Amino acid sequence: MTQSPPLSPAEFGVGARITLSAMSDDYVRILLDALSSADATGLDVQTGAVSTFAAGGEADLVRYLVQLVAAAGRSGVHVSASIHFSRGCPGEVVCDLPGGAGPLAADIPEVPPTGVSAIGEWALYPLDDTARAGVEPDHMRDIYAAIDFARELGTFEASEHFVTRLSGDVADVIRTAAAGWILVGRTVQHVTSHVTLSINSPTSR
Amino acid sequence: MTQSPPLSPAEFGVGARITLSAMSDDYVRILLDALSSADATGLDVQTGAVSTFAAGGEADLVRYLVQLVAAAGRSGVHVSASIHFSRGCPGEVVCDLPGGAGPLAADIPEVPPTGVSAIGEWALYPLDDTARAGVEPDHMRDIYAAIDFARELGTFEASEHFVTRLSGDVADVIRTAAAGWILVGRTVQHVTSHVTLSINSPTSR
Repeated sequence: MTQSPPLSPAEFGVGARITLSAMSDDYVRILLDALSSADATGLDVQTGAVSTFAAGGEADLVRYLVQLVAAAGRSGVHVSASIHFSRGCPGEVVCDLPGGAGPLAADIPEVPPTGVSAIGEWALYPLDDTARAGVEPDHMRDIYAAIDFARELGTFEASEHFVTRLSGDVADVIRTAAAGWILVGRTVQHVTSHVTLSINSPTSR
Repeated sequence: MTQSPPLSPAEFGVGARITLSAMSDDYVRILLDALSSADATGLDVQTGAVSTFAAGGEADLVRYLVQLVAAAGRSGVHVSASIHFSRGCPGEVVCDLPGGAGPLAADIPEVPPTGVSAIGEWALYPLDDTARAGVEPDHMRDIYAAIDFARELGTFEASEHFVTRLSGDVADVIRTAAAGWILVGRTVQHVTSHVTLSINSPTSR
């Protein structure tokens, strides 16, 4: 039996979209400065009218997103960032990978703290329909395991309607959302994770 | 056999979160004015540091969100709005409804145009693990049906990585994301839909 070579992250559809907003008349400069200061090594980055898309390996993605959001936060203005991670469904409407192609394992990236604090709301979606090795799909079971990881990391604040509330350094909040997505992705092919961060919010001071 | 009374939308966990951002030094006034101008009749609304949560029936939710986003857009400043619809999983970490409790049907709300144009990026997540009446779960099948609805409504622009790009009146863009969520919700209990809108963007002019 011939084994297929392992897929690259890009072939597996590993990537993220980010919509970054700066509540300032000077938002164009703040966002362009943040985009140019973040290290995009290893990533394919395309900026669109609604979001910036980045494709590549998990460690490169997390480093880039953390640097981008922290840089915008260092402007001192109120910033929001909505991040959408995806894996296991490359292509556009139709996944290039068929359902059941299998998961792609990855390590949880290490990322240094930024000194910028954030609060976040996070939702995690295992989108697998396929039983594997006799284990039935159970999307809530997978989500509980990821929330346990957030508790261990110290970013877990509370369970809210539809989301988990996180707080901590921008690096830890983004890493929590990425870690849940990677952990679930070890057994589920198609996984997405959505986290919205708020920095320098007047209502959280 | 005794039939249970039908669940109310609140009991079924029908609701949405919205993070609204205005790229202006005057963002507090713009957002507070938009929040106070939107008709929240029939909804339980709670504003938090990351998002505003609204629970209630589908028609009330869509009316409220459309009025809120359009009001912010009428300020003329660049606005982004991230909306997260959910149904079928009330409660917090643990759904109060067990998986397999069944779907709750709803009509697709009618909503008048606002005169405010938006572009959007939309993702739809059927989160059901349970086969019903011999029909196996197939989350991509359900998503294709919802995208067909967007084509009929005229808001479909393109398929992008991870999302469907929409454009049109704010009312139609939000209605498309809600309609997909409601259509899938006729056969799937737990469904979420995420749409990020951009209004008055300098890059889309």
